[in-house]
This record gives sequence, C-alpha cells and structure tokens, in this order.
Amino acid sequence: LEDLGEFGLIARLTRGLPQPPYVRLGAGDDAALLDCDDGSQIVATCDALVEGIHFVRAWATAEQIGRHALAVNLSDVAAMGGEPLAALVSLILPRATAVEWLDGLYAGLRAEAEAFGVGIVGGNVAATDGPLVVDITLLGRVPAGRALLRSGARVGDRLCVTGTFGAAAAGLLTLREPEGVGGATDPAVERVRAALRVPQPRVSEGRALAAGAGVTAMIDVSDGLAADLAHLCERSGVGAVVEADALPILDATWDVARRYGRDAIELALQGGGDYELLFAVRPEQEARALAAASTAGCAATAIGTVTEAASGLRLRRGDGGWVQLEPQGWDHLRSLDRASEQGR
Amino acid sequence: LEDLGEFGLIARLTRGLPQPPYVRLGAGDDAALLDCDDGSQIVATCDALVEGIHFVRAWATAEQIGRHALAVNLSDVAAMGGEPLAALVSLILPRATAVEWLDGLYAGLRAEAEAFGVGIVGGNVAATDGPLVVDITLLGRVPAGRALLRSGARVGDRLCVTGTFGAAAAGLLTLREPEGVGGATDPAVERVRAALRVPQPRVSEGRALAAGAGVTAMIDVSDGLAADLAHLCERSGVGAVVEADALPILDATWDVARRYGRDAIELALQGGGDYELLFAVRPEQEARALAAASTAGCAATAIGTVTEAASGLRLRRGDGGWVQLEPQGWDHLRSLDRASEQGR
Repeated sequence: LEDLGEFGLIARLTRGLPQPPYVRLGAGDDAALLDCDDGSQIVATCDALVEGIHFVRAWATAEQIGRHALAVNLSDVAAMGGEPLAALVSLILPRATAVEWLDGLYAGLRAEAEAFGVGIVGGNVAATDGPLVVDITLLGRVPAGRALLRSGARVGDRLCVTGTFGAAAAGLLTLREPEGVGGATDPAVERVRAALRVPQPRVSEGRALAAGAGVTAMIDVSDGLAADLAHLCERSGVGAVVEADALPILDATWDVARRYGRDAIELALQGGGDYELLFAVRPEQEARALAAASTAGCAATAIGTVTEAASGLRLRRGDGGWVQLEPQGWDHLRSLDRASEQGR
Repeated sequence: LEDLGEFGLIARLTRGLPQPPYVRLGAGDDAALLDCDDGSQIVATCDALVEGIHFVRAWATAEQIGRHALAVNLSDVAAMGGEPLAALVSLILPRATAVEWLDGLYAGLRAEAEAFGVGIVGGNVAATDGPLVVDITLLGRVPAGRALLRSGARVGDRLCVTGTFGAAAAGLLTLREPEGVGGATDPAVERVRAALRVPQPRVSEGRALAAGAGVTAMIDVSDGLAADLAHLCERSGVGAVVEADALPILDATWDVARRYGRDAIELALQGGGDYELLFAVRPEQEARALAAASTAGCAATAIGTVTEAASGLRLRRGDGGWVQLEPQGWDHLRSLDRASEQGR
C-alpha cells in the first residue's frame, strides 16, 4: 500500500467509475459537483482526521481538534468557490474515550460550523479498538458553472495564494521537538502552533475568487504547496515557476525555522497543513483577483507563473538560480511511519 | 462511554444544534433533509463499517463487504423514501491492507452502486494503526414533503415490514459457532449467511411507500426489530403491539435457530442486520401499502398495531400471552465487548 501511495491508490480504485448524468464532477478534485435542477450544483467532500496520523490529543484541545476536523473540509469546499451548508460527522471511538473530551470536540465542531453558517445535520458513532477517527462529509452549493476546478490553468496564467505558508509545519516542529524553542509563552511559537491547530479555511475568499475574478483553476493547499501545485499542474496539463522570494511567510515562521536550523522557504514549499488557496488567474486579471481575495478576507500574493508542461515545476531562488521543485508533501499512506512519530 | 450508550451519546452531542433555515430535518432520523430550490430535498446519511465490530474479513469476501458498506447507507435513504444518487467513500486503512483486497472492496462498492444507479463521486483515504474502517456518506433526493420520518405514526396505525427478520442473526450464529451446523454447503446455512453478508436495501419499496400509500412513519431496521420499533415509537410518541405469529421469518432461519436451540422469534425481534423497512400506515390504507411494497420489490407483512404511548411496547405471543417487548438490539458502543468477540 505504501509503495502505491495515497494518490496511486485513489487513482487505481476510482479508475473508470461510472458516473450517472447528474454527476458534473466525480472523484479527483477537491470536491464533487452534482447538478441540481435549480441552477446550482451541490459541492460534496469528505475528509477524516485519524488520531496519531493527523492529530495528537496532547498537542491540542478537544475544541481545537473539532474546529480542525471541520476546517479541513471547509477548505475543500472553499477551493471550489462553494458556499458550505451542511456537515455529517462520523465518529469512530475507542471505548476509553472520555465523554467530556467528546463534549469538547463537539463544542469545537459547533463553533466552527456556526462561524461558517453550516448546519451539523447528522452522522454516526461506532466503536473501535484502534485510534479515534473524526470523519466529516461537508455539503455545499455553488452556482452552476461557477465552480473552480484544478484543471483550468493555462500557460501564462499567474499563480497566486491566499495567506501564508509554512507556519503549520513550523508549529509541528515545536511540538515534536519542544526543547528546540524557549517555551510555550514565546509569541512566535504560539503563533505557529495556532496555525497548525486551527487552520483558517478561506471560504469567503474562495467564493469571491469564483465570482468572476478571472481565476482559471484553484486547489486548497493541505499537503504542502509544492505537492498541491503539482496536483493542479498535472490536472491542467501545465508546468509552473515559483519565485522563492515571493512566497508569503510569517515572521514567526522565519523565527522558528531559524531556531531549528531549518529553511523557512523549505517549510513553506514542503510543509503541509496550511489550508490556503492556490489559484491560477489570467495575467490581466491578477490585480483584480488579488483585490477580490483580500477584500473578502485575507491578503493574497502572486508567487509565480504557469508554464508549458515540458518545463515541469521549477523554483527560482532568491539568488537567481533555478532548481526543480520536487514535491515532498504529505501522503496519507506513504508517510505513515514518519507520521506516527510526528503525530501528524 | 458504554454507560451512556450509542443513542445517549448522540443525544448528548447533538442537543440544541443550531440548524440553518435550509435544514428541514437534522440529526435523529435515518437521514437528514435539506431543502433545494427546485421542489426537491437532498437526503443525506452516513454510516461506517468498522472491522471487528461490523464485519470480519474471514467471514465475507471483500466484494461482499463492499456491497454491505453501501447497502447499509442505501437502507437509510430507502427509509426516507428517497432516491439514492451519490456516495462518498472514506477508507481508513491499516498499512498491511493488501491492494488486491481493496480492489475487491471497490468491486463490491461499484456493483452495489451500479445496481442502484448511484455514482461514487469522491472520498478519501487515510492510514491507521487500528482496524479498517469503511465510512460512506450517501446523498439522495426526495420530492419536497414526501420523505417519511420516524415521527409520524398515530394510534391505530398498522405496523408493517418488508421482507423477513432474523436471518442475519442466524447467519451470525453459524459463523460464530460453525460447529453447530453441518457445514457451509447446507442450503439453510448458506441462505442465512448470505442475508448477513449482503443485505438487500429496500430502495424501490421505500420510494413506492413514500409515493402516497398512506404511510405515516418509516425506519430501517438495522439494530433489531424491537430496537428500531422503539426508536420509531419514541419519535412518534406512541406504543405498539407486535403479533409474534405474524412475524415474517424464513424457513432457513427457523431451521438454523432450532439447531442452536434458539428461538427464531427472538432472533427476529432482537437480532440486527436485517435492513428491512418498518412502517406505520393508516389502517384503511394497509392493503394498498402492502401491495405498493410488493409490486416494487419484496413482500410486505402487517405485524402489529400502533397504540397509546402508555402501553409501551408489547408482544402478543402465539399462545395468546402478552409480554413487554424489551429492545436488546445492537448498540454500536455498548455492545463493543460482545461485538469484538462476535465480529459484528
């Protein structure tokens, strides 16, 4: 299974799945799209957090884990430009789970749902002898034809992102190797840990970008910027150049990376857990798209350009040198050994 | 957690969940209902199969487990009278899972999806150090106002069911204690094992019953007839009488029960895994509803009557005696110990 990897397995299992006529988009993007008869499409996605793989109870409160579990799904709906509506929450619970911890988890789920106008409309619970799993399906809606897919980027488009990168990866460093930082009261450490614990899904930004801002393709960055850029480029049949100097990185991330002797650029490109949006936009619409995102919520930044597929993925370093960008992002299967140790 | 039980936990976690205006029905029924603007409602449900709790790999093929995983969700959509449309499949996989086994699981999922006109439109995979989980969310559609809830039964309604009861429980007996039966080639044993391994969701029957056959309430029977009758009665604020002699039970179930010294009536009332529909219907419409179900697919049978809540749940035995019907059905949390041993 690990040889095949997460994406190899998904491709193998979903190859040639028959799709009824109302399925506008099946497996393979951030979410599926189903036609309604009222001029809208249902956006549907699911994502699970597995204890010991995606979270460690000692590293976050139950509320934070609850928010996180919904946020990763909100991010997928955001990446389609969709409006999230309703969530189903499936809990797979070890017998020893404290009810008070579950109360906390649900408090986080409720808070996140309320913040984004989402109803928690169902779910189920089952017992397990293994780790706790929070598996959420999120349904949303988008006007027909408005959803942004991974597949629309064209040569010459500008590549842009919301928010900043690498903070969650830096936060993970501080939790895995706490001896490397001065203490939990350090503002930089608190900042990057917060980024890891409670990602901010870019729902309003995604909707604004889908509403006619010239955006040609979009994906949410959950597995690492390089890895998700590779997904977008593969789907679009293009290559890309990323400018290292243009990557938006928090001061706190630089600070923490330095203390661990790590390169913040590397964390930004290869670390996962950012849950920002990466999008391609026609060059003449770049300013408009950046303004649309920032008006809706957070700052957005141009980080590169879409190129011919034959050029692959390249990084232009600050010193002017070029390197091939090798995605080493998160694989939910292949990285299990490392993941178990790291608690991601 | 086990003290609280599955339904106590769900009630505790979902109490007072805020519901946006498009949520017609939230947690607590077989599925949620969301309003669309086109005169239909989305039906949404999710249910997980956990290895060692809901299935044992040695007791069924991967294909059968795949069919089963989708069937339990189809049954929930059927219980609303809905048309199933699209499934999202979340797999939580032990590292050692053979890819060939997953191919088989997906072959079963595909076959079941195709048989019911459902598209598999997405999902996700994640690794675990624990047991394998197949968690499916199924979306469907029902004309607005047509969905059948658990809450509509009225005093005087007749209680009816599709299909037969107790076969899955008898099948479980033969797998747990194979020495009790002559061998796997025995037709009765094969019959009850098939009932356990691949339940037949009553989708067309459910849709027919929702299409104006006078049905007032419906539920799918997954946890045991007595337990799910109790759920329907609780939601409707009523009691019930069940006639033991009227319970539809396969000859094979009687045969296997006898060989284990068990009462087939008890298996029919308390065993789980039947995935039949239980519905209440106005007495003057009983014949019409039974005909609607059997025209759509399988035979349906009247098994009792809805009474005042104060009478509780009662069973009239074949000898004319009355007993209180105590639901001892499946609880996905409380029964874990027993479940682990039994592989349910």
